[in-house]
Amino acid sequence: MDLEVVTVGTELLLGFTVDSNSAEIGRQLATVGVRVARRTSVADDAEAIRDAVGAALRRSRVVLITGGLGPTRDDITKHTVAGLFEVPLEFRDEIWQELVERWARLGRRLAEANRTQAMVPRGATVLPNRWGTAPGLWLKGGPGLAIMLPGVPREMRGLLEHEVVPRLGSQSGGRVIRSRTLRTTGIPESSLSDRIGPIEGELAPVTLAYLPSLEGVDLRVTCWDTEPAEADRRLAAAMGRLRQAAGSHVYGEEEADLAAVVLEVARSAARTIAVAESCTGGLVGGRLTAVPGSSDVFLGGVIAYHNEAKRALLGVPADVLDREGAVSEATARLMAEGAARRLGASAAVAVTGIAGPSGGSPEKPVGTICFATTVGGATQSSRTILPGERYDIRARATQLALHLLLGRLRAGEDRAPR
Amino acid sequence: MDLEVVTVGTELLLGFTVDSNSAEIGRQLATVGVRVARRTSVADDAEAIRDAVGAALRRSRVVLITGGLGPTRDDITKHTVAGLFEVPLEFRDEIWQELVERWARLGRRLAEANRTQAMVPRGATVLPNRWGTAPGLWLKGGPGLAIMLPGVPREMRGLLEHEVVPRLGSQSGGRVIRSRTLRTTGIPESSLSDRIGPIEGELAPVTLAYLPSLEGVDLRVTCWDTEPAEADRRLAAAMGRLRQAAGSHVYGEEEADLAAVVLEVARSAARTIAVAESCTGGLVGGRLTAVPGSSDVFLGGVIAYHNEAKRALLGVPADVLDREGAVSEATARLMAEGAARRLGASAAVAVTGIAGPSGGSPEKPVGTICFATTVGGATQSSRTILPGERYDIRARATQLALHLLLGRLRAGEDRAPR
Repeated sequence: MDLEVVTVGTELLLGFTVDSNSAEIGRQLATVGVRVARRTSVADDAEAIRDAVGAALRRSRVVLITGGLGPTRDDITKHTVAGLFEVPLEFRDEIWQELVERWARLGRRLAEANRTQAMVPRGATVLPNRWGTAPGLWLKGGPGLAIMLPGVPREMRGLLEHEVVPRLGSQSGGRVIRSRTLRTTGIPESSLSDRIGPIEGELAPVTLAYLPSLEGVDLRVTCWDTEPAEADRRLAAAMGRLRQAAGSHVYGEEEADLAAVVLEVARSAARTIAVAESCTGGLVGGRLTAVPGSSDVFLGGVIAYHNEAKRALLGVPADVLDREGAVSEATARLMAEGAARRLGASAAVAVTGIAGPSGGSPEKPVGTICFATTVGGATQSSRTILPGERYDIRARATQLALHLLLGRLRAGEDRAPR
Repeated sequence: MDLEVVTVGTELLLGFTVDSNSAEIGRQLATVGVRVARRTSVADDAEAIRDAVGAALRRSRVVLITGGLGPTRDDITKHTVAGLFEVPLEFRDEIWQELVERWARLGRRLAEANRTQAMVPRGATVLPNRWGTAPGLWLKGGPGLAIMLPGVPREMRGLLEHEVVPRLGSQSGGRVIRSRTLRTTGIPESSLSDRIGPIEGELAPVTLAYLPSLEGVDLRVTCWDTEPAEADRRLAAAMGRLRQAAGSHVYGEEEADLAAVVLEVARSAARTIAVAESCTGGLVGGRLTAVPGSSDVFLGGVIAYHNEAKRALLGVPADVLDREGAVSEATARLMAEGAARRLGASAAVAVTGIAGPSGGSPEKPVGTICFATTVGGATQSSRTILPGERYDIRARATQLALHLLLGRLRAGEDRAPR
């Protein structure tokens, strides 16, 4: 089943607002096998709306319209679509009562001028909006089906998920577009593709997309227009093959967060974690503490940005800093060990490097990062050069620090210390 | 001048990619007075592209098309638009030579199959792409003007800024749409609007928008369809009035970053900064170190997530933690003072609170955050309850910590300690 989307909003066209609704609509509709055939954005202008919605209905018979529904925009969408369907607006007392009661619960009285919000095109089904005031509308008639939702992202999402998707799903004949995602990190897209290339042919008809970001490369497999059970079976097989090919670089599926995985593995190994950060300046700690309930595993850390902080708070001897430099594996090892000792943690990770734009040298160019992990008294270190600008380098270094720590925690203490 | 945008890409419609290009296009075109009248997104499908581009040209005579230009999508846009303009594609040797040389510089040889990339519609101006391989195209003819750009965001932006905007600007008769933004923080939108309400009428014809985010509320003023000098004059006057109304909550203009402002003020006051973070877990340090060149002012800090870390690394006495609790102004004050002392910094900020979802109590509900700042030996503290979920609470607490520190640094040491 195909559908067109029309978004109403001058701010969207001016670029003051990034349109996050459209991606959400595409993803949610795909779950019930509905494909967005076209998307049109127009200003808050009756003529433009009429033209765009009319054309969409003529082409696709089903249109989803977002925006132009709230009272501040004069309900422009409602009036215009009612005109296209040649039905009048009528007053629905139940909507009005619901609004009055909601305002009363907030201790306020609703002005009579708001009665226009309870006007709906004759024959429309009202989709109750638990997330805001303007209800969604579902209008069937001669021109086809028009679904109207408010443009406020939270309200749009709520109505889409709870009212629109189930209704459309019941008409889709049970076929779906379904995707799964395997998350990898610590390996560039090209190396990953070298590993996966040989099996890519076997995945068909499941399609594969590489989605690189600063967190790593996500592998998304999609099964198109299939019965749900068949799609799940095919996707599971594809995920299994990809997981094997990507090996230890896999850290999870779907929305998995590397920091959450690190905490979980540490928890089941009865480890506690500390961090020592120089160039990342707190980002590793920030990632770990972003996870609810991290406090039983993560104890804390030291942001040792200045050399004096590395010495005073982590016990890195001045002569090591002088001889090896702040950006060295030797310093990273002492930082990790110092953090574990000072915080009484059984595992720690340290990051020290040159995020740029200044501070680089021919020997240690911008992007040079040294890492160390210490787990159960055994310390390992490594050095790498990360690409990108300051922001990218810091984000990549944070992710890599977590990945290195995960590797150590997974391996337990049985690895020989380097 | 009005223009329509057509974006080509199946991934955009499926929702796998968020369309960040469109907002960029709207903003950049506004700077030369060009308004986006409509935006249409279609799949990588020749018929859909022809239909959408043809309709856009009939309505607006000028269309900007992104996507469908690279070799992997069979240059579908180029072929389709050439068809609409009824011109053949012809081989341009200078494009081919440029591509061959670029590949040679990377030590690779370009396959003959890539010759299609050097084919352009007859009469088109080639817009050189310094950010990638597929050049942009500027095609004028009977149906109007079609501007074709690759969909890759970096390439699209570069071509838009350096090739398209200057060309369109020379045709706009010198009138512009111009905006300026005043950044505020530490005050809710409703309180800000109470302050600004009385002067809002005087801003006309400049329009005002409130843009709330986790960093605070930005105030954007826009002057429409005006001569540049006149727009600048009006916007400067509006910014002056808003600045006065918002007072100490203003921390900068346009893209100003609060952390950068904090560092700058500290630098000119010859202060050094340390942080002590519990619930924010490193986010304050992360923000400060995100700023290039922060190392002369920011020394480092302690992530004291666990109580034991507050004691061992910051010297907060166990009896204070027991009596007042980890989330208390007393603890925050000792954390700030401990961080300043341990790191030898003349200014420090501490954050301790309950970010949720668990850990709240009737007395200290989720969102309760205590802050302390110490500058030149004088310590101040405060306590607040921040709204939202864990992510929001942590982001707001980070911003508020920076804002409190900024207030202290601006005031110097002359305030009485509390």
